[in-house]
Amino acid sequence: MSITTPRGFAATGVAAGLKSSGRPDLALVRNLGPDFAAAGVFTSNRVKAAPVLWTERVLADSRLQAVILNSGGANACTGPAGFADTHRTAELVATELGIGAIDVAVCSTGLIGTRLDMAAIEAAVPDLVANADQSGGADAAVAIMTTDTVSKQADVTADGWSISGMAKGAGMLAPGLATMLVVITTDAVVQPATLRPALAEACRLTFDRLDSDGCMSTNDTVIVMASGASGSRPDPTELTAALTTVCDDLALQLLADAEGAAHNITITVRGAASEQEAVDVGRTIARNNLFKCAIFGQDPNWGRVLAAIGTTDAAFEPDQLDVSFNGVAVCVGGAIGEPRELVDLSGREVQVDVDLHAGGHTATIRTNDLTYDYVKENAEYSS
Amino acid sequence: MSITTPRGFAATGVAAGLKSSGRPDLALVRNLGPDFAAAGVFTSNRVKAAPVLWTERVLADSRLQAVILNSGGANACTGPAGFADTHRTAELVATELGIGAIDVAVCSTGLIGTRLDMAAIEAAVPDLVANADQSGGADAAVAIMTTDTVSKQADVTADGWSISGMAKGAGMLAPGLATMLVVITTDAVVQPATLRPALAEACRLTFDRLDSDGCMSTNDTVIVMASGASGSRPDPTELTAALTTVCDDLALQLLADAEGAAHNITITVRGAASEQEAVDVGRTIARNNLFKCAIFGQDPNWGRVLAAIGTTDAAFEPDQLDVSFNGVAVCVGGAIGEPRELVDLSGREVQVDVDLHAGGHTATIRTNDLTYDYVKENAEYSS
Repeated sequence: MSITTPRGFAATGVAAGLKSSGRPDLALVRNLGPDFAAAGVFTSNRVKAAPVLWTERVLADSRLQAVILNSGGANACTGPAGFADTHRTAELVATELGIGAIDVAVCSTGLIGTRLDMAAIEAAVPDLVANADQSGGADAAVAIMTTDTVSKQADVTADGWSISGMAKGAGMLAPGLATMLVVITTDAVVQPATLRPALAEACRLTFDRLDSDGCMSTNDTVIVMASGASGSRPDPTELTAALTTVCDDLALQLLADAEGAAHNITITVRGAASEQEAVDVGRTIARNNLFKCAIFGQDPNWGRVLAAIGTTDAAFEPDQLDVSFNGVAVCVGGAIGEPRELVDLSGREVQVDVDLHAGGHTATIRTNDLTYDYVKENAEYSS
Repeated sequence: MSITTPRGFAATGVAAGLKSSGRPDLALVRNLGPDFAAAGVFTSNRVKAAPVLWTERVLADSRLQAVILNSGGANACTGPAGFADTHRTAELVATELGIGAIDVAVCSTGLIGTRLDMAAIEAAVPDLVANADQSGGADAAVAIMTTDTVSKQADVTADGWSISGMAKGAGMLAPGLATMLVVITTDAVVQPATLRPALAEACRLTFDRLDSDGCMSTNDTVIVMASGASGSRPDPTELTAALTTVCDDLALQLLADAEGAAHNITITVRGAASEQEAVDVGRTIARNNLFKCAIFGQDPNWGRVLAAIGTTDAAFEPDQLDVSFNGVAVCVGGAIGEPRELVDLSGREVQVDVDLHAGGHTATIRTNDLTYDYVKENAEYSS
């Protein structure tokens, strides 16, 4: 299964020479129709890369025929010249396909603040377009990898139609999207007016609740394209559920492959006065470096959890906070609960439960621990 | 010079057995008068340790005769029993001195969520009180250390009066005070109505602008006591300036001793629409783990600075942002400036300058890099 499993899509990935390693770095995903419905969700960072600014613009008409994605350079903070590079990339693809550049989205990932090697892209596009076919989904997923150790794909097969996605992302994973590029394809017949809110809802509950290192990227992009090639017309609820399943699967794969992480941490906040306050508390814990180091050290240091909660504006009373690690209630009523020695944090998965006792709302945030390898990857290599 | 250099103060530090290492862990600072004016500034964390709750209460009358400080346990998140321990500690000192517990402040630092060894404190207090004298300031500064590698003292000598301070703090250093205990003494004659705003202003411009690891403590306390023993009456401006100098000196010592840090980073944000926005932008950069790792790796990765700025609500246009590292303008107008290879980050001190071009306000935030040793100290040892 790959993004070319749903009918009406072609894809490929090649090595254009953008990466000094010589690994694949340029991917194309084409929608062959008969429909060309599309929607996108983008980083909420106010410093947006040129391809984000371009793709927001081309998606204004909710129509897309192709997405070209490069790793090996984010094309962010590159000024008007960088935007011209993105525009030129879309035009190269459009010319080969005999369509307008306005139907070609562009995604980029890699180091911020360097220009792309446009000569390499120009030389690679004709073959990229010529080679894209129904067997190329997996190659595309490989070509968008940066520090990812594995390619990431997910899919759902429904009654008569299917949906599939690919993702890249391993660092700078934070809210309002983890740092990532995601392309999702479906052969369902979907109107843009249905596709847009379905994608927004799926992202809200999945990628937006992933906060690996608190650092929001300039390039985050999620694009969904619907070809209509199956002829099936799922209702909006069914579509949103399938989209959410694919996004959640990809989000978990991003978390599992986060740079240098030794633990996947799931923080569930209950008893909040609102869902937003539950998210705020979960995110604040997820971003606390002392907490993240403690998990790496397999130390159920609930004091650091309370110290983090105390910096939020959420409704709670300090003497009513409960915290458990992997089911052991180490903090009850804001004070000492069961012995911390009962907690086993040797496994990869860690579950932290917080009860604010301030209402009926719940949210779950996923994060990683802070490790030597995280520092190493982000100190030794520019990205 | 120490906190017993200003006339009218006695102090000491002893090993009470709270630390398993056997190092000094209990300190006393007495104000011998004739005045007993005092003021305090405390953590803005909503989860406050018992000694913070107690000391806020005893400072309500702006009068203090003694402060007892323990390392080896934060007495935070310990519930009503923990508060009773703090109250009891104040009473033990008060009984020995023949004064009321309401004139005795208590400060604690160490692991959150464990009870103090009250038997050890009870056994140590009589000697602590008996030994406190004018030569004991330096011993007190040593007894409050936790992961600090050096004790921290600072002072200013003015015309006929002086002011001196001691501090501890090396981790959980973040806003609204770095994690720290600070006691400042002066022999000036100062009314409480002058002392309180002077301390608040001094903290606002020094400790509040220190953000080593973004983690706010439950125990932060700054106390100033004025004995009036010099008979000198500085005007409020002069007092505030001297207090600010002492606090700034101590803040720099905290930064230099931050757990595992390899660089001291000074982030100056100019051209902000307000001072608060300048502070917000500086703090957001200071808390960005990718930026902090890059500095550790001596990589002037200005893209990570822009990505951090882009997550704030401050007024700016992305294509007008300037960033320089150690004077090299690596980013101009939101795009590529001078070559990053010109930047030398091999020294301990790093200066990052940001110009938002959105107004006339400036602020400076100080932070540290994120290193293997930070992770090691905070993963391997509970604190």
